[in-house]
Amino acid sequence: MGVYIGIDPGLASVGYGIVKQEGSAICSLSYGVIETSSAEDQVGRLITIFNGISEQCRRYKPTIGGVETLYFAKNVTSALPVAQARGVILLALGLQGIEVREFTPNQIKATVLGSGKADKGQVQRMVQIILGLQDIPKPNHAADALAAAIACTGAVL
Amino acid sequence: MGVYIGIDPGLASVGYGIVKQEGSAICSLSYGVIETSSAEDQVGRLITIFNGISEQCRRYKPTIGGVETLYFAKNVTSALPVAQARGVILLALGLQGIEVREFTPNQIKATVLGSGKADKGQVQRMVQIILGLQDIPKPNHAADALAAAIACTGAVL
Repeated sequence: MGVYIGIDPGLASVGYGIVKQEGSAICSLSYGVIETSSAEDQVGRLITIFNGISEQCRRYKPTIGGVETLYFAKNVTSALPVAQARGVILLALGLQGIEVREFTPNQIKATVLGSGKADKGQVQRMVQIILGLQDIPKPNHAADALAAAIACTGAVL
Repeated sequence: MGVYIGIDPGLASVGYGIVKQEGSAICSLSYGVIETSSAEDQVGRLITIFNGISEQCRRYKPTIGGVETLYFAKNVTSALPVAQARGVILLALGLQGIEVREFTPNQIKATVLGSGKADKGQVQRMVQIILGLQDIPKPNHAADALAAAIACTGAVL
């Protein structure tokens, strides 16, 4: 029994998903994306992300937050703004006493699908089934965040 | 006339320096480093940095914050944790309504020395002279942060 938040970090679009586990049942409490515009300045975007995540945490009071790790093969310049946003996300969780667990994308896929080899569509479909949602959760970032939240439950699915 | 904070971002050691400009005179109000230990978890380190910068801003109420840009030639893995810390620093400034200006290390050197080509020792020495400090400001990160604060004054020195 517990409430968990999952987050798919980004700068333009941060996916979040909050799930509640009771016994073997897991349901979705909330999911979506926090969007920021490149027309906004960098600091304004970080504030939007911080406030958005903080608000979700205040409302649903998760005890554990699962946050995707970043992976950047080459382009360090494009990685830095996203890493800055991720720092703000970790801070938002930490300031509310939420325990942070970090998962690689493959770890998250393995949790919901039993294998790290899966495409986006399979993850979305499996998240839908696990949470008993009527529709496929969209956009992708929100589905990934729900998958990260499911990974927090530690449930063998 | 104004109060400016300069910050040299990092994860293990964040330099900060606060200066006050009155007419053509610039003096130092505070400088130092916020240190975090690798024994602490990542989120704890981000909270320490956020609280440390926020505390300095509450105490001295700067209106503008000068923050060094990050430059990483190759190693994206080591860059990401520092970028996460920088995101938290920008947030701390933004949440208190402090206008952020970003400076490359060379822009900061050019402000205090008239040239982007300078070694650390020259920057420290020039910061000491401009601020009329009895001793060379130490450690390096604090001196760099004071230089970033001086860059905010926009003074031609």
